[in-house]
Amino acid sequence: MSRLQHLYDSMKQNHLDSMFITSKANLFYFSNYYTDPHERFIGIYVTQKHDPFLIVPAMEVNDAKQAGWTYEIIGYKDDEDLWALIQNHIHTLGNTPERIGLEEDEISLARYKAVQQILPKTEIVHAQEMLAHLRVIKSPQEYNILQQAAELADFGIETGMHAIREGVTEMEILATIEYELKKQGVQEMSFNTSVLSGSKTASPHGTPGNKTIEKGDFVLFDLGVVFEGYCSDMTRTFACHSATDEQKRIYETVLRAEEEAIKASVVGEKVGTIDQVARNIITDAGYGTYFTHRIGHGLGIDVHEYPSMHANNTLPLAEGMCYTIEPGIYVPNVGGVRIEDMVFMTKDGAETLTKFPKHLQIIS
Amino acid sequence: MSRLQHLYDSMKQNHLDSMFITSKANLFYFSNYYTDPHERFIGIYVTQKHDPFLIVPAMEVNDAKQAGWTYEIIGYKDDEDLWALIQNHIHTLGNTPERIGLEEDEISLARYKAVQQILPKTEIVHAQEMLAHLRVIKSPQEYNILQQAAELADFGIETGMHAIREGVTEMEILATIEYELKKQGVQEMSFNTSVLSGSKTASPHGTPGNKTIEKGDFVLFDLGVVFEGYCSDMTRTFACHSATDEQKRIYETVLRAEEEAIKASVVGEKVGTIDQVARNIITDAGYGTYFTHRIGHGLGIDVHEYPSMHANNTLPLAEGMCYTIEPGIYVPNVGGVRIEDMVFMTKDGAETLTKFPKHLQIIS
Repeated sequence: MSRLQHLYDSMKQNHLDSMFITSKANLFYFSNYYTDPHERFIGIYVTQKHDPFLIVPAMEVNDAKQAGWTYEIIGYKDDEDLWALIQNHIHTLGNTPERIGLEEDEISLARYKAVQQILPKTEIVHAQEMLAHLRVIKSPQEYNILQQAAELADFGIETGMHAIREGVTEMEILATIEYELKKQGVQEMSFNTSVLSGSKTASPHGTPGNKTIEKGDFVLFDLGVVFEGYCSDMTRTFACHSATDEQKRIYETVLRAEEEAIKASVVGEKVGTIDQVARNIITDAGYGTYFTHRIGHGLGIDVHEYPSMHANNTLPLAEGMCYTIEPGIYVPNVGGVRIEDMVFMTKDGAETLTKFPKHLQIIS
Repeated sequence: MSRLQHLYDSMKQNHLDSMFITSKANLFYFSNYYTDPHERFIGIYVTQKHDPFLIVPAMEVNDAKQAGWTYEIIGYKDDEDLWALIQNHIHTLGNTPERIGLEEDEISLARYKAVQQILPKTEIVHAQEMLAHLRVIKSPQEYNILQQAAELADFGIETGMHAIREGVTEMEILATIEYELKKQGVQEMSFNTSVLSGSKTASPHGTPGNKTIEKGDFVLFDLGVVFEGYCSDMTRTFACHSATDEQKRIYETVLRAEEEAIKASVVGEKVGTIDQVARNIITDAGYGTYFTHRIGHGLGIDVHEYPSMHANNTLPLAEGMCYTIEPGIYVPNVGGVRIEDMVFMTKDGAETLTKFPKHLQIIS
C-alpha cells in the first residue's frame, strides 16, 4: 500500500477530510521530493475528495516532477500572492474542507493564520502525531537506506579515529572526515559534525574549533550523513595517548549504560524504561547529575524525530522503529564521554545499525 | 546602545510590554548564544518590567553563560514540563504581561498555543517585522564580520575553480571546496554547497551528484560560510574547456543584469526596482521566462533574511543593509548561469563584499 494510501486511511480514522502538509520531511515522505525551501513555502494539499496537489516555488516545478510526483503541481513566483493562489485553486476544485489537519510542531503561526484566513469555515486540527505514527514504523526499504546511512557514519568515525594525533586541530580532523565522506557521494551531513577534545568534551553541544589535540585528551566525534533522504547519527569517544583512571571509569560506565539500554530494547517495552536503565547505571556509579540529556531520539528523514526517548515516555517500542541510544557523562573541567548507536527494532530485539567498535581505544 | 536597549525602545513604540524570542537567529542576536536546538525549545523572555531571562536545555546552560549571557538562565531537562516551568517563573517574577510579541514566521503553531495557555489573559501580537527592522541595519562590527564571511566565500569559489577538470565529479569538487574552507576554521556552511554542471545548471536548486564534468559544460558554484554567526552567499558560473555562442550570450546577459542591479542600488531606491532593472535586461534579451526567481534576499545571521528582494517590494534601501544580487537564466536542456554577489549599502551606493572576478572564465 502506498504512503498516500496509508495517509488517507489515517485521515479517515481521525475524521479529517483534508490535510495540509508543509514540513520538508513529511513532504518528502509523501511526494519523494526532497528540498530545502528556507523561508519559501512548500506544501501538499491532500483531500479525500480529489487528487492531492503540490505547491513549490516556480523554479522547482521541474525538480519536483523529476522526483516522481505525478499529480498536479502549482508553481508560484517570489512576487506572487501565494495564499490567494492556493485559495483559488481549492475553490476551482470545488470543495471546501470541513476539517483540515496541520503539522502543529512545524507550521508557523503566520502560516496557520493564513490557512485560517483562506479557509474561514474549516476546522483546523493538530495532525503532527498522526503523521509521526505513520513515519515511526519503517519499511524494509527504509531499513536498507538507514543501514547504508549508518555504514557511512561508521566510515566517518573510522576516518576521524585515523586522523587523531597530538597537535592536529579539531577543525582539521572535522575537515578530513567530511572530505572523505563527500568524496563518497554524501551530499549533506545530517547535522553539524562535532569534533571536541579535552575539557571541551564536557559540553554535550560544544563547538569544534582550532583547539589542538593534546596527550591525555578525550576526543569525541558526533556525526551523521543524509543518505537518500534519511539520516544517520552516531558518537564515539577516543583517548589520545593515555587515559587516567577517572577517564577510564567514566568511559566504562557510559559503555555499560549504553549496552544495557540496547539489551533492554525489546518490542513492547516502554521508551521511558530505556532511559531509566541507562540512567540508573550512571547514577549508581555516582555520575547521575552529569547525564544531562535523554537517552536518545527517533530518527529517519529527520535526524531527531518521533519518539523522544526520555524517562517519562510511555510509548511501547514496536517492530520497525529506529532510534539512537546515546548515554553520556559530562564532568565540567574534566571531560565527557558519549557513546551513541542507531538501533532498529526487530521482533528479536534491537539490531545495532552502527557497527564501529565501542571499547575504549587509546590512540597513540 | 546595546541591542537589548534598542529592543526595549522598539517594544515601547509598538506598545509591547514583553516579547518571547524563540528563533535561533534572534536569540543569537540578543544573547550572543549561537546554538542549533533542533526540536528542543530555546527562548528569551524580555519585559519592560524586569531583567530578561533565557531558557535553554539543561545541558547548554554553561555554553550560554560562556557566550556572555549575564542575566538569569533557566535550564530544563528533556523529561520536564517546559511550559509549566516557564509559567511558574513568570509568576515568580510577579507580573503577567499585557501584550506579548512573538515571531510569527518562526514560532510553531504548537508553541503559540502553549504561550496562549500559560498566559491566557495576555494579548499576543506579531512582532517578527519589528525584530527584522532592528536586524536589517547592520552595525560596523557586523559589517566587518560579513566582509570576512564574504572573503571566505571568495576563497571557496577560487578553490572550486581550480578543481574544475574534465572527468572529475561534482561531489569531488564540492568535497575539495569544503575541505579547504573547514581547514581554515569554517565550522559550518551557510547552506548546502551547490556544484552543478552541464544541463543540471538549468535547475536553480539542483542537487550535486556523481555527474562528471565534461567539455562544454557550465559549472556553477553556489556557496557560503557561517563566520562568527553571520552568513555569506555567492555564486559564480564557469565554462569547462569551451562555450558556445548561446552560452556566451546567456552569460553576458546575466552579467549585465547583475552589474546594472548593483549600480541601481542606492539609498532610497525601492527594493523592487533592483529586481526590475535586472529583469528588464534579461527580458529584453529574450530570456525573461527563464529568470524564475527574485533578484535576491537580505542576509546576516540567517542566510535568507529580511528583506525579500522581489519586484513588488516597496521598501526603500537604507545605509547598513546587506543583501544578495543574483540574477540567473535557466534554459531547460541547455543550462543555466547565475552570478551572485553580497552587497552592503553605503551612502555612496552598494559596496560589493564578494570580490571574485565575474567575467566568463573558460577553464581548460
